[in-house]
Amino acid sequence: MQQTVAVVLSGCGVFDGSEIHEAVSTLIHLSRLGADVHCFAPDTDQPSVVNHLTGQPAPDHRNILVESARIARGNVKPLSGCSADNFDAVFFPGGFGAAMNLCNFADKGPDCTVNADVERVLNEFHDANKPIGMCCIAPVIAAKTFGKSGGVTLTLGDDSEASKAAETMGATHQQATVTQTVTDEPNHLITTPAYMHGNAPIHQVFEGIGQMVEQTLAMAASTGAPA
Amino acid sequence: MQQTVAVVLSGCGVFDGSEIHEAVSTLIHLSRLGADVHCFAPDTDQPSVVNHLTGQPAPDHRNILVESARIARGNVKPLSGCSADNFDAVFFPGGFGAAMNLCNFADKGPDCTVNADVERVLNEFHDANKPIGMCCIAPVIAAKTFGKSGGVTLTLGDDSEASKAAETMGATHQQATVTQTVTDEPNHLITTPAYMHGNAPIHQVFEGIGQMVEQTLAMAASTGAPA
Repeated sequence: MQQTVAVVLSGCGVFDGSEIHEAVSTLIHLSRLGADVHCFAPDTDQPSVVNHLTGQPAPDHRNILVESARIARGNVKPLSGCSADNFDAVFFPGGFGAAMNLCNFADKGPDCTVNADVERVLNEFHDANKPIGMCCIAPVIAAKTFGKSGGVTLTLGDDSEASKAAETMGATHQQATVTQTVTDEPNHLITTPAYMHGNAPIHQVFEGIGQMVEQTLAMAASTGAPA
Repeated sequence: MQQTVAVVLSGCGVFDGSEIHEAVSTLIHLSRLGADVHCFAPDTDQPSVVNHLTGQPAPDHRNILVESARIARGNVKPLSGCSADNFDAVFFPGGFGAAMNLCNFADKGPDCTVNADVERVLNEFHDANKPIGMCCIAPVIAAKTFGKSGGVTLTLGDDSEASKAAETMGATHQQATVTQTVTDEPNHLITTPAYMHGNAPIHQVFEGIGQMVEQTLAMAASTGAPA
Protein backbone atom coordinates (compact mmCIF):
# COMPACT_ATOMS: atom_id res chain seq x y z
CA MET A 1 0.00 0.00 0.00
CA GLN A 2 1.34 3.41 -0.92
CA GLN A 3 2.67 5.47 1.95
CA THR A 4 1.74 9.11 2.28
CA VAL A 5 4.30 11.41 3.86
CA ALA A 6 4.79 15.05 4.80
CA VAL A 7 8.04 16.96 4.18
CA VAL A 8 8.49 20.17 6.19
CA LEU A 9 10.56 22.83 4.40
CA SER A 10 11.93 26.05 5.89
CA GLY A 11 12.77 28.21 2.87
CA CYS A 12 15.25 27.68 0.04
CA GLY A 13 19.00 27.83 0.66
CA VAL A 14 21.42 26.47 3.24
CA PHE A 15 22.13 29.76 5.04
CA ASP A 16 18.54 30.96 5.65
CA GLY A 17 16.26 28.12 4.55
CA SER A 18 16.15 24.42 3.80
CA GLU A 19 19.48 23.02 2.66
CA ILE A 20 18.63 22.43 -1.00
CA HIS A 21 20.74 19.29 -1.57
CA GLU A 22 19.23 17.67 1.53
CA ALA A 23 15.66 18.59 0.64
CA VAL A 24 16.02 17.34 -2.95
CA SER A 25 17.77 14.14 -1.80
CA THR A 26 14.85 13.49 0.54
CA LEU A 27 12.35 14.02 -2.30
CA ILE A 28 14.28 11.78 -4.73
CA HIS A 29 14.46 8.87 -2.28
CA LEU A 30 10.80 9.22 -1.28
CA SER A 31 9.80 9.16 -4.96
CA ARG A 32 12.05 6.18 -5.66
CA LEU A 33 10.36 4.28 -2.83
CA GLY A 34 6.90 5.12 -4.15
CA ALA A 35 5.72 7.48 -1.43
CA ASP A 36 3.03 10.10 -2.04
CA VAL A 37 4.78 13.29 -0.91
CA HIS A 38 3.16 16.48 0.41
CA CYS A 39 5.36 19.48 1.21
CA PHE A 40 4.58 22.03 3.92
CA ALA A 41 6.20 25.16 5.32
CA PRO A 42 5.25 27.91 7.78
CA ASP A 43 3.46 30.81 6.05
CA THR A 44 5.49 33.51 7.82
CA ASP A 45 8.35 35.84 6.92
CA GLN A 46 11.93 34.69 7.43
CA PRO A 47 13.53 36.51 10.39
CA SER A 48 16.46 37.23 8.08
CA VAL A 49 17.70 36.72 4.53
CA VAL A 50 21.32 35.83 3.71
CA ASN A 51 23.13 36.62 0.46
CA HIS A 52 24.48 33.14 -0.31
CA LEU A 53 27.32 34.50 -2.43
CA THR A 54 28.80 36.69 0.32
CA GLY A 55 27.37 35.02 3.42
CA GLN A 56 26.26 38.48 4.59
CA PRO A 57 22.77 39.62 5.63
CA ALA A 58 20.62 40.90 2.76
CA PRO A 59 17.96 43.62 3.12
CA ASP A 60 15.25 41.51 1.40
CA HIS A 61 12.05 40.30 2.99
CA ARG A 62 11.14 36.74 2.06
CA ASN A 63 8.32 34.43 3.13
CA ILE A 64 9.22 30.88 4.21
CA LEU A 65 6.32 29.25 2.36
CA VAL A 66 6.91 31.25 -0.85
CA GLU A 67 10.64 30.44 -0.91
CA SER A 68 10.00 26.77 -0.05
CA ALA A 69 7.84 26.65 -3.19
CA ARG A 70 11.07 26.97 -5.23
CA ILE A 71 12.18 23.55 -3.96
CA ALA A 72 8.67 22.10 -4.25
CA ARG A 73 7.97 23.44 -7.77
CA GLY A 74 4.96 25.28 -6.34
CA ASN A 75 3.51 22.24 -4.60
CA VAL A 76 3.71 23.29 -0.97
CA LYS A 77 1.03 24.15 1.60
CA PRO A 78 0.96 26.09 4.87
CA LEU A 79 2.18 23.97 7.77
CA SER A 80 -0.93 24.97 9.73
CA GLY A 81 -2.85 22.53 7.52
CA CYS A 82 -0.59 19.55 8.25
CA SER A 83 -2.16 16.89 10.49
CA ALA A 84 -0.52 13.60 11.42
CA ASP A 85 -3.92 11.95 10.81
CA ASN A 86 -3.26 12.23 7.07
CA PHE A 87 0.31 10.90 6.90
CA ASP A 88 2.40 7.84 7.69
CA ALA A 89 5.60 9.74 8.47
CA VAL A 90 7.10 13.23 8.47
CA PHE A 91 10.53 14.43 7.27
CA PHE A 92 12.57 17.50 8.19
CA PRO A 93 15.56 18.35 5.95
CA GLY A 94 18.24 20.57 7.49
CA GLY A 95 19.82 23.90 6.66
CA PHE A 96 19.92 27.03 8.82
CA GLY A 97 16.21 27.43 8.06
CA ALA A 98 15.54 24.52 10.44
CA ALA A 99 17.41 26.40 13.19
CA MET A 100 16.21 29.93 12.30
CA ASN A 101 12.74 29.57 10.78
CA LEU A 102 11.30 26.41 12.39
CA CYS A 103 12.76 27.28 15.80
CA ASN A 104 15.20 29.92 17.01
CA PHE A 105 18.01 27.55 18.04
CA ALA A 106 20.52 29.50 15.90
CA ASP A 107 19.95 32.53 18.16
CA LYS A 108 19.02 31.02 21.51
CA GLY A 109 20.70 27.61 21.66
CA PRO A 110 19.18 25.35 24.34
CA ASP A 111 16.82 28.16 25.42
CA CYS A 112 15.18 28.20 21.99
CA THR A 113 11.47 28.06 21.33
CA VAL A 114 9.91 25.99 18.53
CA ASN A 115 7.43 27.34 15.97
CA ALA A 116 3.96 26.42 17.31
CA ASP A 117 2.90 24.48 14.22
CA VAL A 118 6.22 22.61 14.08
CA GLU A 119 5.83 21.62 17.74
CA ARG A 120 2.19 20.57 17.21
CA VAL A 121 3.08 18.48 14.14
CA LEU A 122 5.98 16.75 15.91
CA ASN A 123 3.84 15.97 18.95
CA GLU A 124 1.02 14.63 16.76
CA PHE A 125 3.31 12.22 14.91
CA HIS A 126 5.02 11.21 18.16
CA ASP A 127 1.73 10.57 19.96
CA ALA A 128 0.49 8.48 17.02
CA ASN A 129 3.71 6.40 16.97
CA LYS A 130 4.33 7.59 13.42
CA PRO A 131 8.01 7.98 12.56
CA ILE A 132 9.93 11.22 12.15
CA GLY A 133 12.95 11.41 9.80
CA MET A 134 15.39 14.31 10.19
CA CYS A 135 18.82 15.31 8.98
CA CYS A 136 21.61 17.81 9.58
CA ILE A 137 20.71 20.41 12.26
CA ALA A 138 16.95 19.63 12.21
CA PRO A 139 17.21 17.09 15.09
CA VAL A 140 17.70 20.00 17.54
CA ILE A 141 13.99 20.70 17.02
CA ALA A 142 13.20 17.17 18.26
CA ALA A 143 15.66 17.62 21.13
CA LYS A 144 13.75 20.69 22.30
CA THR A 145 10.21 19.44 21.58
CA PHE A 146 10.68 16.08 23.33
CA GLY A 147 13.18 17.24 25.97
CA LYS A 148 10.49 17.67 28.61
CA SER A 149 9.00 14.21 28.02
CA GLY A 150 12.10 12.09 28.57
CA GLY A 151 14.25 13.13 25.63
CA VAL A 152 15.23 11.44 22.41
CA THR A 153 18.37 9.83 21.01
CA LEU A 154 19.70 11.47 17.86
CA THR A 155 22.77 12.32 15.84
CA LEU A 156 24.19 15.68 14.81
CA GLY A 157 27.34 14.09 13.34
CA ASP A 158 30.43 14.54 15.48
CA ASP A 159 30.33 15.89 19.02
CA SER A 160 30.07 19.67 18.74
CA GLU A 161 28.54 22.79 20.26
CA ALA A 162 25.26 21.74 18.65
CA SER A 163 25.37 18.23 20.12
CA LYS A 164 26.19 19.64 23.58
CA ALA A 165 23.21 21.99 23.26
CA ALA A 166 20.99 19.04 22.26
CA GLU A 167 22.10 17.18 25.39
CA THR A 168 21.39 20.28 27.49
CA MET A 169 17.85 20.13 26.07
CA GLY A 170 17.52 16.53 27.29
CA ALA A 171 18.61 14.53 24.24
CA THR A 172 21.20 11.77 24.02
CA HIS A 173 23.73 12.36 21.25
CA GLN A 174 25.31 9.56 19.21
CA GLN A 175 28.05 10.30 16.72
CA ALA A 176 27.55 9.13 13.14
CA THR A 177 29.30 9.44 9.78
CA VAL A 178 27.58 11.07 6.84
CA THR A 179 26.30 7.73 5.51
CA GLN A 180 25.07 6.45 8.90
CA THR A 181 21.80 6.91 10.74
CA VAL A 182 20.81 6.82 14.40
CA THR A 183 17.47 5.23 15.27
CA ASP A 184 15.50 5.93 18.44
CA GLU A 185 13.05 3.02 18.30
CA PRO A 186 10.78 3.97 21.22
CA ASN A 187 10.38 7.52 19.91
CA HIS A 188 10.23 6.54 16.22
CA LEU A 189 12.95 9.05 15.35
CA ILE A 190 15.56 8.41 12.62
CA THR A 191 18.35 10.95 12.11
CA THR A 192 21.40 11.30 9.84
CA PRO A 193 24.12 14.00 9.91
CA ALA A 194 24.12 15.09 6.22
CA TYR A 195 25.92 18.46 5.99
CA MET A 196 26.66 18.57 9.74
CA HIS A 197 29.74 17.01 8.12
CA GLY A 198 30.28 20.25 6.21
CA ASN A 199 32.90 18.90 3.81
CA ALA A 200 31.02 15.74 2.89
CA PRO A 201 30.61 15.19 -0.85
CA ILE A 202 27.03 15.65 -2.02
CA HIS A 203 26.68 12.03 -3.18
CA GLN A 204 27.44 10.81 0.35
CA VAL A 205 24.88 13.24 1.78
CA PHE A 206 22.46 11.76 -0.77
CA GLU A 207 23.38 8.23 0.37
CA GLY A 208 22.96 8.96 4.08
CA ILE A 209 19.60 10.60 3.50
CA GLY A 210 18.61 7.55 1.44
CA GLN A 211 19.30 5.38 4.50
CA MET A 212 17.27 7.71 6.70
CA VAL A 213 14.34 7.76 4.28
CA GLU A 214 14.33 3.97 3.78
CA GLN A 215 14.46 3.28 7.51
CA THR A 216 11.76 5.83 8.29
CA LEU A 217 9.39 4.36 5.69
CA ALA A 218 10.18 0.83 6.89
CA MET A 219 9.37 1.85 10.45
CA ALA A 220 6.13 3.47 9.29
CA ALA A 221 5.19 0.23 7.51
CA SER A 222 5.92 -1.92 10.55
CA THR A 223 4.57 0.21 13.39
CA GLY A 224 2.27 2.90 12.10
CA ALA A 225 -1.44 2.71 11.55
CA PRO A 226 -2.14 3.51 7.91
CA ALA A 227 -2.80 7.21 7.31
CA MET B 1 42.55 10.88 -13.81
CA GLN B 2 40.00 13.15 -12.17
CA GLN B 3 37.80 15.09 -14.56
CA THR B 4 37.17 18.79 -13.97
CA VAL B 5 33.81 20.14 -15.09
CA ALA B 6 31.84 23.38 -15.16
CA VAL B 7 28.13 23.61 -14.28
CA VAL B 8 26.33 26.73 -15.49
CA LEU B 9 23.45 27.82 -13.24
CA SER B 10 20.81 30.46 -13.99
CA GLY B 11 19.30 31.32 -10.61
CA CYS B 12 17.42 29.17 -8.11
CA GLY B 13 13.91 27.92 -8.85
CA VAL B 14 12.12 26.35 -11.80
CA PHE B 15 10.03 29.40 -12.81
CA ASP B 16 12.79 32.05 -12.95
CA GLY B 17 16.09 30.22 -12.42
CA SER B 18 17.74 26.81 -12.56
CA GLU B 19 15.32 23.95 -11.96
CA ILE B 20 16.52 22.91 -8.50
CA HIS B 21 15.90 19.15 -8.80
CA GLU B 22 17.76 19.06 -12.12
CA ALA B 23 20.70 21.12 -10.85
CA VAL B 24 21.05 19.01 -7.68
CA SER B 25 20.70 15.75 -9.63
CA THR B 26 23.52 16.92 -11.91
CA LEU B 27 25.72 17.72 -8.90
CA ILE B 28 25.00 14.39 -7.17
CA HIS B 29 25.88 12.33 -10.25
CA LEU B 30 29.03 14.37 -10.94
CA SER B 31 30.15 13.85 -7.34
CA ARG B 32 29.33 10.12 -7.48
CA LEU B 33 31.51 9.80 -10.59
CA GLY B 34 34.40 11.63 -8.93
CA ALA B 35 34.38 14.86 -10.94
CA ASP B 36 35.81 18.11 -9.60
CA VAL B 37 32.86 20.49 -10.03
CA HIS B 38 32.97 24.27 -10.49
CA CYS B 39 29.71 26.21 -10.66
CA PHE B 40 29.24 29.42 -12.66
CA ALA B 41 26.43 31.86 -13.35
CA PRO B 42 26.06 35.26 -15.04
CA ASP B 43 26.59 38.14 -12.59
CA THR B 44 23.56 40.12 -13.77
CA ASP B 45 20.05 40.80 -12.51
CA GLN B 46 17.23 38.45 -13.44
CA PRO B 47 14.89 40.10 -15.96
CA SER B 48 12.03 39.01 -13.70
CA VAL B 49 11.28 37.22 -10.46
CA VAL B 50 8.39 34.77 -10.05
CA ASN B 51 6.57 33.97 -6.82
CA HIS B 52 6.81 30.16 -6.96
CA LEU B 53 3.75 29.70 -4.71
CA THR B 54 1.37 31.68 -6.93
CA GLY B 55 3.22 31.52 -10.27
CA GLN B 56 2.76 35.30 -10.52
CA PRO B 57 5.43 37.97 -11.08
CA ALA B 58 7.01 39.29 -7.89
CA PRO B 59 8.31 42.87 -7.45
CA ASP B 60 11.72 41.69 -6.15
CA HIS B 61 15.06 42.32 -7.81
CA ARG B 62 17.38 39.31 -7.71
CA ASN B 63 20.83 38.68 -9.16
CA ILE B 64 21.39 35.43 -11.08
CA LEU B 65 24.81 34.73 -9.51
CA VAL B 66 23.62 35.49 -5.97
CA GLU B 67 20.55 33.24 -6.28
CA SER B 68 22.58 30.47 -7.95
CA ALA B 69 24.75 30.50 -4.82
CA ARG B 70 21.78 28.99 -2.94
CA ILE B 71 22.09 25.81 -5.02
CA ALA B 72 25.91 25.89 -4.92
CA ARG B 73 26.17 26.54 -1.15
CA GLY B 74 28.11 29.72 -1.94
CA ASN B 75 30.58 28.03 -4.30
CA VAL B 76 29.78 29.75 -7.58
CA LYS B 77 31.75 32.21 -9.71
CA PRO B 78 30.86 34.71 -12.44
CA LEU B 79 30.46 33.03 -15.81
CA SER B 80 32.79 35.64 -17.32
CA GLY B 81 35.63 33.72 -15.63
CA CYS B 82 34.75 30.34 -17.17
CA SER B 83 37.15 29.18 -19.89
CA ALA B 84 36.94 25.82 -21.67
CA ASP B 85 40.72 25.60 -21.29
CA ASN B 86 40.21 24.70 -17.63
CA PHE B 87 37.51 22.04 -17.95
CA ASP B 88 36.81 18.66 -19.55
CA ALA B 89 33.07 19.22 -20.01
CA VAL B 90 30.29 21.71 -19.27
CA PHE B 91 26.74 21.10 -18.01
CA PHE B 92 23.58 23.19 -18.27
CA PRO B 93 20.62 22.19 -16.06
CA GLY B 94 17.20 23.45 -17.16
CA GLY B 95 14.45 25.54 -15.64
CA PHE B 96 12.98 28.77 -17.01
CA GLY B 97 16.23 30.46 -16.00
CA ALA B 98 17.90 28.73 -18.94
CA ALA B 99 15.32 30.27 -21.27
CA MET B 100 15.00 33.67 -19.52
CA ASN B 101 18.39 34.39 -17.95
CA LEU B 102 20.92 32.57 -20.19
CA CYS B 103 19.05 33.55 -23.37
CA ASN B 104 15.68 35.16 -24.04
CA PHE B 105 14.04 32.18 -25.73
CA ALA B 106 11.07 32.37 -23.33
CA ASP B 107 10.24 35.81 -24.76
CA LYS B 108 11.51 35.67 -28.33
CA GLY B 109 11.37 32.00 -29.36
CA PRO B 110 13.53 31.26 -32.43
CA ASP B 111 14.48 34.95 -32.68
CA CYS B 112 16.15 34.84 -29.27
CA THR B 113 19.63 36.07 -28.46
CA VAL B 114 22.02 34.21 -26.17
CA ASN B 115 23.89 35.80 -23.24
CA ALA B 116 27.34 36.71 -24.59
CA ASP B 117 29.27 34.70 -21.98
CA VAL B 118 27.01 31.68 -22.46
CA GLU B 119 27.56 31.84 -26.23
CA ARG B 120 31.32 32.25 -25.77
CA VAL B 121 31.54 29.31 -23.34
CA LEU B 122 29.51 27.02 -25.61
CA ASN B 123 31.63 27.93 -28.63
CA GLU B 124 34.85 27.37 -26.68
CA PHE B 125 33.83 23.87 -25.57
CA HIS B 126 32.51 23.05 -29.05
CA ASP B 127 35.67 24.25 -30.79
CA ALA B 128 37.80 22.21 -28.35
CA ASN B 129 35.72 19.05 -28.96
CA LYS B 130 34.86 19.02 -25.26
CA PRO B 131 31.38 17.66 -24.53
CA ILE B 132 28.34 19.65 -23.46
CA GLY B 133 25.61 18.03 -21.30
CA MET B 134 22.21 19.70 -21.10
CA CYS B 135 18.72 18.90 -19.88
CA CYS B 136 15.14 20.13 -20.01
CA ILE B 137 14.77 23.42 -21.96
CA ALA B 138 18.52 24.24 -21.90
CA PRO B 139 19.16 22.58 -25.30
CA VAL B 140 17.40 25.51 -27.02
CA ILE B 141 20.54 27.53 -26.17
CA ALA B 142 22.63 25.04 -28.16
CA ALA B 143 20.06 25.10 -30.96
CA LYS B 144 20.50 28.87 -31.27
CA THR B 145 24.26 29.01 -30.69
CA PHE B 146 25.10 26.27 -33.20
CA GLY B 147 22.23 26.91 -35.63
CA LYS B 148 24.37 29.01 -37.95
CA SER B 149 27.15 26.42 -38.13
CA GLY B 150 25.17 23.40 -39.31
CA GLY B 151 22.92 22.76 -36.33
CA VAL B 152 22.88 20.11 -33.64
CA THR B 153 20.74 17.09 -32.82
CA LEU B 154 19.04 17.25 -29.45
CA THR B 155 15.98 16.28 -27.43
CA LEU B 156 13.38 18.43 -25.71
CA GLY B 157 11.22 15.42 -24.82
CA ASP B 158 8.11 15.05 -26.95
CA ASP B 159 7.47 17.12 -30.07
CA SER B 160 6.18 20.50 -28.89
CA GLU B 161 6.25 24.23 -29.56
CA ALA B 162 9.75 24.26 -28.06
CA SER B 163 11.00 21.45 -30.33
CA LYS B 164 9.49 23.18 -33.39
CA ALA B 165 11.27 26.38 -32.38
CA ALA B 166 14.55 24.45 -31.99
CA GLU B 167 14.13 23.10 -35.52
CA THR B 168 13.41 26.62 -36.80
CA MET B 169 16.78 27.59 -35.27
CA GLY B 170 18.46 24.83 -37.29
CA ALA B 171 18.45 21.91 -34.85
CA THR B 172 17.22 18.36 -35.43
CA HIS B 173 14.82 17.21 -32.71
CA GLN B 174 14.62 13.61 -31.49
CA GLN B 175 11.93 12.56 -29.03
CA ALA B 176 13.06 10.89 -25.81
CA THR B 177 11.50 9.66 -22.57
CA VAL B 178 12.56 11.11 -19.23
CA THR B 179 15.15 8.36 -18.68
CA GLN B 180 16.62 8.52 -22.20
CA THR B 181 19.33 10.71 -23.72
CA VAL B 182 20.07 11.88 -27.25
CA THR B 183 23.73 12.03 -28.29
CA ASP B 184 25.08 14.20 -31.11
CA GLU B 185 28.50 12.58 -31.53
CA PRO B 186 30.04 15.04 -34.03
CA ASN B 187 29.03 18.02 -31.89
CA HIS B 188 29.76 16.35 -28.53
CA LEU B 189 26.30 17.26 -27.23
CA ILE B 190 24.31 15.00 -24.87
CA THR B 191 20.75 15.99 -23.91
CA THR B 192 17.95 14.51 -21.79
CA PRO B 193 14.39 15.81 -21.37
CA ALA B 194 14.12 15.90 -17.53
CA TYR B 195 11.11 18.10 -16.60
CA MET B 196 10.21 18.79 -20.25
CA HIS B 197 8.12 15.78 -19.20
CA GLY B 198 6.40 17.96 -16.60
CA ASN B 199 4.69 15.15 -14.73
CA ALA B 200 7.73 12.91 -14.48
CA PRO B 201 8.50 11.70 -10.95
CA ILE B 202 11.65 13.28 -9.54
CA HIS B 203 13.50 9.95 -9.25
CA GLN B 204 13.12 9.40 -13.01
CA VAL B 205 14.40 12.92 -13.69
CA PHE B 206 17.35 11.99 -11.45
CA GLU B 207 17.87 8.78 -13.42
CA GLY B 208 17.76 10.47 -16.83
CA ILE B 209 20.20 13.14 -15.71
CA GLY B 210 22.43 10.36 -14.39
CA GLN B 211 22.54 8.87 -17.90
CA MET B 212 23.34 12.29 -19.39
CA VAL B 213 26.12 12.94 -16.87
CA GLU B 214 27.68 9.48 -17.28
CA GLN B 215 27.67 9.70 -21.07
CA THR B 216 29.05 13.23 -21.09
CA LEU B 217 31.94 12.29 -18.79
CA ALA B 218 32.58 9.13 -20.82
CA MET B 219 32.74 11.19 -24.01
CA ALA B 220 35.09 13.66 -22.33
CA ALA B 221 37.36 10.77 -21.30
CA SER B 222 37.40 9.29 -24.81
CA THR B 223 37.62 12.39 -26.98
CA GLY B 224 38.70 15.39 -24.99
CA ALA B 225 42.19 16.59 -24.31
CA PRO B 226 42.71 16.70 -20.54
CA ALA B 227 41.84 20.09 -19.06
